[in-house]
Amino acid sequence: MRLRNVKGSKEIIDSSEYIIKDYKNYKGNYNKLFKNNNPIHIEIGMGKGNFIINMAKKYPNINFIGIEKYDSVIARSVQKIDDFIPNLKLIRMDATEIDEVFDKEIDVIYLNFSDPWPKNRHEHRRLTCERFLKRYDKLFKNKKNIIMKTDNRKLFEFSIISFIDHGYKIKNISLNLYEDDLTDNVKTEYEEKFSSMGYPIYKIEVES
Amino acid sequence: MRLRNVKGSKEIIDSSEYIIKDYKNYKGNYNKLFKNNNPIHIEIGMGKGNFIINMAKKYPNINFIGIEKYDSVIARSVQKIDDFIPNLKLIRMDATEIDEVFDKEIDVIYLNFSDPWPKNRHEHRRLTCERFLKRYDKLFKNKKNIIMKTDNRKLFEFSIISFIDHGYKIKNISLNLYEDDLTDNVKTEYEEKFSSMGYPIYKIEVES
Repeated sequence: MRLRNVKGSKEIIDSSEYIIKDYKNYKGNYNKLFKNNNPIHIEIGMGKGNFIINMAKKYPNINFIGIEKYDSVIARSVQKIDDFIPNLKLIRMDATEIDEVFDKEIDVIYLNFSDPWPKNRHEHRRLTCERFLKRYDKLFKNKKNIIMKTDNRKLFEFSIISFIDHGYKIKNISLNLYEDDLTDNVKTEYEEKFSSMGYPIYKIEVES
Repeated sequence: MRLRNVKGSKEIIDSSEYIIKDYKNYKGNYNKLFKNNNPIHIEIGMGKGNFIINMAKKYPNINFIGIEKYDSVIARSVQKIDDFIPNLKLIRMDATEIDEVFDKEIDVIYLNFSDPWPKNRHEHRRLTCERFLKRYDKLFKNKKNIIMKTDNRKLFEFSIISFIDHGYKIKNISLNLYEDDLTDNVKTEYEEKFSSMGYPIYKIEVES
């Protein structure tokens, strides 16, 4: 997700208590940053942050880290946080560096409405391609868990095959989330928009 | 699929050159029935036969066997065949007996618009449940190949997980077949109806 340049993004990022600047220094030690040993869940490509902010509020005993590439987008998410959320941190970085940032300490990865990169020659940029799945392998503490939502059918089909080829099993799958039980569902901005337009939202939970 | 009793079903079945009556006698030797060593593809639950009849016409170098439980339904399919199709045979039997009928001689199994058996307590009746996948294991000659189509989302979600848990890999998947390339698609009766009503048709090809 890109946004037009948000005025003052740089200043917002610099002054935010949520955004970790020296994130590479915490590699393998994120529990020290949170000052507890609670499970750590990360969202790669958090966009404007609705999902990760609401998840952090809903599950105070889980630590959440949102990752986003663009200054303007992460700045927008910071502006949304009203009350202090102790179990939430954000990192402005490119997902390709992810295995330089975390080491055997993550419990769950969320991939929500990731860029589908529809052209075949951009396959290696999709966050569920083999190259990324290999990077993720190094992040997980014990069991590997990935939870993905998207409205993009082609990306979803590609991702199912990619997960399975990489040895994942499917814990849950829904090919139309909004026809299923939504009790525990936390929406992203995209999801809000596309589900209200009647498009099917796809969801998969895989583990290995 | 059930139909009202078709008058004279019994007579149609008895006199048809397509329907194998002593099918258990051919176990492991279906190539002798066809008098060649071409690959054998079977459709379990062929319904009124559009798919298997048209596949047999389209691919004369593959032998096709359609399996159907109900007299009235298989009788209807026989009535549809106009010109002689040497590479087509039909069996009236219950799918639970399938491993008493074939032995290491099948190349592909088709499951088209199978009964979804939506109640949890009927899960073991779904043609893609573990119990059936185990039966199918004994049928395949070399590689295991299953190609499934359905309009039933819940059955499809269940089947994906079941295939993967049983060790299959996904060769192809489409969550909306009629938005994809349909060049080689052969329709079933259900498919004709539901795709024209705009419902998504799901398709998966798995191998092991």
